[in-house]
Amino acid sequence: MASPLDNLISHLSRLPGIGERTATRLAFYLLRTSPAFREGFAQSIQNLSQIHLCSQCSTVTDKDPCAICTSHVRLHDVICVVEKPSDIYSIERLHSYQGLYHVLHGLLSPMEGVAPSDLRLPQLFTRLSQQPPKELILALSPTVEGDATSSYITKQLAPQTSAGRLSITRLASGLPIGSDLEFADQITLGKAFEARTRLS
Amino acid sequence: MASPLDNLISHLSRLPGIGERTATRLAFYLLRTSPAFREGFAQSIQNLSQIHLCSQCSTVTDKDPCAICTSHVRLHDVICVVEKPSDIYSIERLHSYQGLYHVLHGLLSPMEGVAPSDLRLPQLFTRLSQQPPKELILALSPTVEGDATSSYITKQLAPQTSAGRLSITRLASGLPIGSDLEFADQITLGKAFEARTRLS
Repeated sequence: MASPLDNLISHLSRLPGIGERTATRLAFYLLRTSPAFREGFAQSIQNLSQIHLCSQCSTVTDKDPCAICTSHVRLHDVICVVEKPSDIYSIERLHSYQGLYHVLHGLLSPMEGVAPSDLRLPQLFTRLSQQPPKELILALSPTVEGDATSSYITKQLAPQTSAGRLSITRLASGLPIGSDLEFADQITLGKAFEARTRLS
Repeated sequence: MASPLDNLISHLSRLPGIGERTATRLAFYLLRTSPAFREGFAQSIQNLSQIHLCSQCSTVTDKDPCAICTSHVRLHDVICVVEKPSDIYSIERLHSYQGLYHVLHGLLSPMEGVAPSDLRLPQLFTRLSQQPPKELILALSPTVEGDATSSYITKQLAPQTSAGRLSITRLASGLPIGSDLEFADQITLGKAFEARTRLS
């Protein structure tokens, strides 16, 4: 029978990026924290079982609709489309986006056999027809799959955009801020040239 | 009221070396693990409250005496003195040491006012007089405090060692294996020269 400490170390070292040494260090740290902190920590892990998908935007939530979908201070006429729930956390950390989200839970990939119906794309189109927003921001990764998904969405919504009822935008691609041009890959550099912006 | 996921992220980011981004990544990973794994993980955190110090060697344990002190396959006439319980984990990972341990819970430091009675030194001397081992290995860090503590222990046990009843050893200092001599600090290099060993 393993000791509580060994048991904790074995659980911690199952987490990604945490080896046995780090797990040991974390376990000894936890041993020095207050019982109240540990109780809250354990509870927060157990409470993950309350999490399901928001029926409106498909993000992970313990309420339905989620806190973002029901927020009165957010803009309900802008929807940002993301691949996965954790992307919402990345964007929320910016504290600058004020609209709603829609999580696809994947990207289109003919190579891997991921079709529109495998993603939350039907739900997106239903949502857009029921509550048409002014802007749809495609915040998908600048990869083959991300681009394919963006193209598909844009094509499906062509009637709305050409009628001027909906504006579809996507995140800019280019050189990462603080990076050295010398180390930029050819494709990124090419995109950065194409999408160059006027300074004055 | 924070969501279960936010609550977990906030607990994870309180751990040393884990920032908000890593905490988010870990929380989403945990969300994908089985409820059974999460239950075991939560339980292992809660079970830390069962941990106390072994009355014989002062390490952290849920039994008393601890599993090492009561082991029938370990050598009971060799005691390795360490600064803290986690040092035992470092040494046990080697799978080569087979003796017992004694945890001091700190090192002597006149500068910071740490005296022998602040550490588990009285307990060490009592233990040595009741069950005298053949060898005492001082596995303390090669620092001013570690050296001071080693000297103090050696001095206190002079009667036993000069009578040939006890052998006191300490871990070797020198160049770390795989390191480049060019980057060794002066003191380490000096010690390595002093403690040079014959090749044939």
